[in-house]
Amino acid sequence: MARRSMRLVEYGKPFQLMKEEVPAAPKGGAVVKTEYAGVCHSDLHSLEGDFRTLVPMQTVLGHEIAGTVHDISPEAGFKVGDRVAVYWHGGCGACSRCEVGETTACLKDVKHWAGINEDGGFSDYVIIPDVRLLVKVPDTVTMDTACLLPCSGLTAYNAVCKMVPTVQDFAKHNADCAVLLVGAGGLGLWGVQFAKQLLPAGVRVISADVDNEKLAAAKEAGCDDVLLWSKDVDDDTAVAAAKKVCGGLGAFAAAIDFVNVPSTFERVEKILAPGGMHVLVGLLGVGAAGSVPLMMYVLGRHQMGAVLMGSLPQMKELMALMAQGKVKPPPISHHPLENVFDVMQDLKAGKVKGRAVIKL
Amino acid sequence: MARRSMRLVEYGKPFQLMKEEVPAAPKGGAVVKTEYAGVCHSDLHSLEGDFRTLVPMQTVLGHEIAGTVHDISPEAGFKVGDRVAVYWHGGCGACSRCEVGETTACLKDVKHWAGINEDGGFSDYVIIPDVRLLVKVPDTVTMDTACLLPCSGLTAYNAVCKMVPTVQDFAKHNADCAVLLVGAGGLGLWGVQFAKQLLPAGVRVISADVDNEKLAAAKEAGCDDVLLWSKDVDDDTAVAAAKKVCGGLGAFAAAIDFVNVPSTFERVEKILAPGGMHVLVGLLGVGAAGSVPLMMYVLGRHQMGAVLMGSLPQMKELMALMAQGKVKPPPISHHPLENVFDVMQDLKAGKVKGRAVIKL
Repeated sequence: MARRSMRLVEYGKPFQLMKEEVPAAPKGGAVVKTEYAGVCHSDLHSLEGDFRTLVPMQTVLGHEIAGTVHDISPEAGFKVGDRVAVYWHGGCGACSRCEVGETTACLKDVKHWAGINEDGGFSDYVIIPDVRLLVKVPDTVTMDTACLLPCSGLTAYNAVCKMVPTVQDFAKHNADCAVLLVGAGGLGLWGVQFAKQLLPAGVRVISADVDNEKLAAAKEAGCDDVLLWSKDVDDDTAVAAAKKVCGGLGAFAAAIDFVNVPSTFERVEKILAPGGMHVLVGLLGVGAAGSVPLMMYVLGRHQMGAVLMGSLPQMKELMALMAQGKVKPPPISHHPLENVFDVMQDLKAGKVKGRAVIKL
Repeated sequence: MARRSMRLVEYGKPFQLMKEEVPAAPKGGAVVKTEYAGVCHSDLHSLEGDFRTLVPMQTVLGHEIAGTVHDISPEAGFKVGDRVAVYWHGGCGACSRCEVGETTACLKDVKHWAGINEDGGFSDYVIIPDVRLLVKVPDTVTMDTACLLPCSGLTAYNAVCKMVPTVQDFAKHNADCAVLLVGAGGLGLWGVQFAKQLLPAGVRVISADVDNEKLAAAKEAGCDDVLLWSKDVDDDTAVAAAKKVCGGLGAFAAAIDFVNVPSTFERVEKILAPGGMHVLVGLLGVGAAGSVPLMMYVLGRHQMGAVLMGSLPQMKELMALMAQGKVKPPPISHHPLENVFDVMQDLKAGKVKGRAVIKL
C-alpha cells in the first residue's frame, strides 16, 4: 500500500506526483484516508507563490478535506473507517483558546494548517496532528459536500451568525426587515441559504452582484430579491434601488460583504439602517481602504464585524445544520488527483462553475 | 408662585428671562422643579444656531436636569418631592422600542427631547411628557451629580458597556490585557472610572490625550498609564509607545475613541489586537472620514461599534452604580440661572474646568 501525494516543487509549475509510504498517526493525532479534497482559490495563491512565507516548498496543498479515519489511537473517540471532515486550522492545542476550539486565535500563534504549511488533501492520506480537529460526517451529508464545509461553508456560516443578534433585534421591532448579501459567488450562495435557516422567519434576504447570471443562481438558492450592481449602476441609483426592495424599514438591518472593495464597502454604509450591522468577509480589497464618515457613523450607531473562517464549535454546528438536508452545496465537479494542476488553471481562467473537488 | 425661564430669542445672543406661570403636569407626564441643570457643549451649538432645524426659537435649553417632582398623577409611582433625574431623550412612548426604553431608536422617530426641541432645564420648572422618563435619584447621589448622568455620564457608560463582552473574552484567555480610552476630557474621565468598575479586575486602563494636564486628571481618575498624543508625536512613535504600555497581549483588546477624528481613528486601528473592539463616540470628526484597510480589517477580525447616548434601562443601571459611591463626577461649579449665557461663553472659550451647572 502506498500513497500518492502531489507536492509543490516550483511556484506556478505542475506538482510532482510522489509515491510514498502511508504514514502512521502521530501521538494524539490521526491519519485520514482522503476521499475528496476541494480546490480552493487560495490553493492557487499558494501554488503561484503569493504566500511564500507561509507555504514551504514540497508541501501537499489542499485544505478542504473529507475522508475516513485510517489510523488513530483507540481512546480518541473515533474508529477506523469513520467518515470525517478535517477542520484544517489547528493551533498549539494546549492554550486556553485552542482548548475551546478557537484555534484560529491560538495564543501561541502556532499554525498546524493542513494544505498550507503542513501536508494537505491532494494526497491519498493526510496526517492530522490532533484528533480534536476531526469532525464526524453524518450519513445524510455526502462526502464531497463535507469537504467544502471547513472553508467556504464555515466562513459563510460564521458571517451569517455574526449578524443574527442584530437582525433578531430588528425583527422584534419591525414587521418587515431585510438583510443584504453582497456577492453571489460560492460564499454568497452558501450565505443566502444560511440566512434563510438562521434568521427569524420573514426576514427578506437580498443579493447584490455585478453579474446577472450569479443573481439568477442566488434566486435559485432562495433569496427574495436581487440588486444588479454592475459598473454602469451609479451609487445614487444603487441606493435608490436598494431602498425599494428592503421593505418597511427603508434600509437594511444588516449586510455581509463577501466582496469587500471600497465601492461595495461605502455603498453598504449608505444603505444600513441606524444600528445596522456590516459584516466584512471578502479579501478582494487588497491594499485598498474603505471610508467611514466618522460623525455620521456615530449618529447612525452602525456596527462592524469581520469574519475569517470560524471556530471548531461552529464547524460542528454547521455539520449538524447540514445533516438536516435543508442547505444545498454549490454544483460540484469531480476530478482525478493527476488533474489537480489543470483544474487549478481552469479555476484561474474562471472556467470552474461551482466547486471543483479532487476525488481520491 | 412663578417660574423663571431662559428662552432662546436670537442665535448667539443672551437668553430672555421670562416670568411665567408654573405649568401643570400633562396627562401621563409630570412637572419637575429643577434643582440643577448642567451646561453641555451641545447647548452652545443650540444657542449658536447650529441645530436650527431641531431647536425652535423660544425654546428653553438645558437637557441635563435633576430636581424634585412637583406635579404628577398619583398612580405614576412617584410622589411630590421625590428626587429625580430626567432621561431627556423621549420618543413616541407607544412603539415597541419606546416600550423597552429604547426611545433613542423610536420607531416613529418622535422626539420629545427636553432642552432641544422642547423646553428644558434652564427654568425653575420643566414639563416632562412621560413619567417613564423620570429616574429616581438615590440618597447617596448628590443632585448636581445626578443632573450630569443622563448625558455625558450615560454616553461614557454605554461606551464602556459596548466593550465589556470583548474585553471579558480577552481577559479569560490573556493574563495581562489592556484597553485604551482616547480623550481625557469629561467623557474620558467618566470612562476611566466606569472601565475600572465594569471590566474584569486586572484589565489595565490607559488614557491618551493631547494635553498633559488632562492626562494627569485621568491618572487621578484611576487609569493605569497614559499616552501623550500631542501633535508632534508621529504615528510610529505613538504606536510603539502604545505597545509598551498595553501589557502581555502586545496590543489593545478594545478602545473607546471619545474624540473620533481621522488621526485618532486610524491610530486606534493600528494598535488593536486581532478580534479587538473599536468604539466610536466623539462627534468631532464632522465631515471627516476614517480609513479602514479592508483586507487587513478582515485578517485582524476587528469589530466596530458606535455609541450615541444610551437607553433608559442603561440610565437606571448607571444610577444604581453611582449609588455605590465608587465613581466620582468631574469637578462641578455652581452658577445662578441669570448667568447661564455668560457660563456658555466661558465654555466656548475653554475656561470651564470640569462641568458647570446652573443651580436653581
